[in-house]
Amino acid sequence: MDKIFSAMREYAHLNNVPIILDDTVALLKSIIRIKKPKRILEIGTAIGYSAGIMLTCCDATITTIDINEDRSKLARQNLTDLKLIDRVNLIVDDAGEVLPLMTGTYDVIFLDGAKGQYKNYYPYLKSLLPSGGVLISDNVLYKGLVKGAVVLKKKRITLVDNLREFLDMLTNDTDYETEILSTGDGVTISVKK
Amino acid sequence: MDKIFSAMREYAHLNNVPIILDDTVALLKSIIRIKKPKRILEIGTAIGYSAGIMLTCCDATITTIDINEDRSKLARQNLTDLKLIDRVNLIVDDAGEVLPLMTGTYDVIFLDGAKGQYKNYYPYLKSLLPSGGVLISDNVLYKGLVKGAVVLKKKRITLVDNLREFLDMLTNDTDYETEILSTGDGVTISVKK
Repeated sequence: MDKIFSAMREYAHLNNVPIILDDTVALLKSIIRIKKPKRILEIGTAIGYSAGIMLTCCDATITTIDINEDRSKLARQNLTDLKLIDRVNLIVDDAGEVLPLMTGTYDVIFLDGAKGQYKNYYPYLKSLLPSGGVLISDNVLYKGLVKGAVVLKKKRITLVDNLREFLDMLTNDTDYETEILSTGDGVTISVKK
Repeated sequence: MDKIFSAMREYAHLNNVPIILDDTVALLKSIIRIKKPKRILEIGTAIGYSAGIMLTCCDATITTIDINEDRSKLARQNLTDLKLIDRVNLIVDDAGEVLPLMTGTYDVIFLDGAKGQYKNYYPYLKSLLPSGGVLISDNVLYKGLVKGAVVLKKKRITLVDNLREFLDMLTNDTDYETEILSTGDGVTISVKK
């Protein structure tokens, strides 16, 4: 199993696929072991690395959404190789289209999709999280740009502005207790009251 | 309440009292909110900062041990000011003497005492942690020295060797699932099977 994860890391590195950093892996594993979720929702499957990491730490099922067909195909293969595919519901579609249609609740939601879209996903994710549920979002500090005062290109400005707006929504929402950690590329951990 | 914590940080800074770093605070708060412990054990009260942080995130009671009388007095005052003292059992004694006499279990153990003693506390802490319990230990990377190859003075060598030995015990112990995070000065999060 370690070999498969290691091959996934290498593939991601060689092909510029963003996967969670080592410190984020350690954090995510710890949270999953403590929370012991039954149902996980992930936005941003990529090649299935974080889904695989989370599933090896608990006996949950995961619903994971990604719009990229090629990567999703690879994720399916990787999660099959890891013998975890029976616990995976992989949806290849735009999370922005899928989320409004979803029902039920998830004990843990891992938000690691298109950074500029976090704020748009916000209300839907909230309705899918029960009391005591944990929302984890990755890359919220976006290489330091979210907290920095750097001159950015137009596209990046929008992305960073959107992330800042998301962080404001989350930290000001009294239905959550939220912490921002500098782990990896910035991680928020929110527990719903 | 924020004002009291802020004054505690300032006191610690001015008087060289080691208290947990901001990123460790965020991590600890998140873990406590997710775990929702009923009973916490802390080794290393110092001025009561981390005990206060943990108690404001849950409705647990805490048993906290420190050998330093002056600091313990200050901790008692701070936890009184924070209106948390009713949930605190503060033991002013050598943890190495007290731990072997303790019984019962604690859902969360926060190990933040004398770094060179972690490995000696190890078996006692293990017997006080139930299945699913969480052991968190702070400063395990000790300013990078534990993983580095630096020339050290004799006293530091012993401390760093002891910490390395503790980390080996913990990561090789199959009764725990352990992650090492670089958060703050290095934090381990172990969940007992």
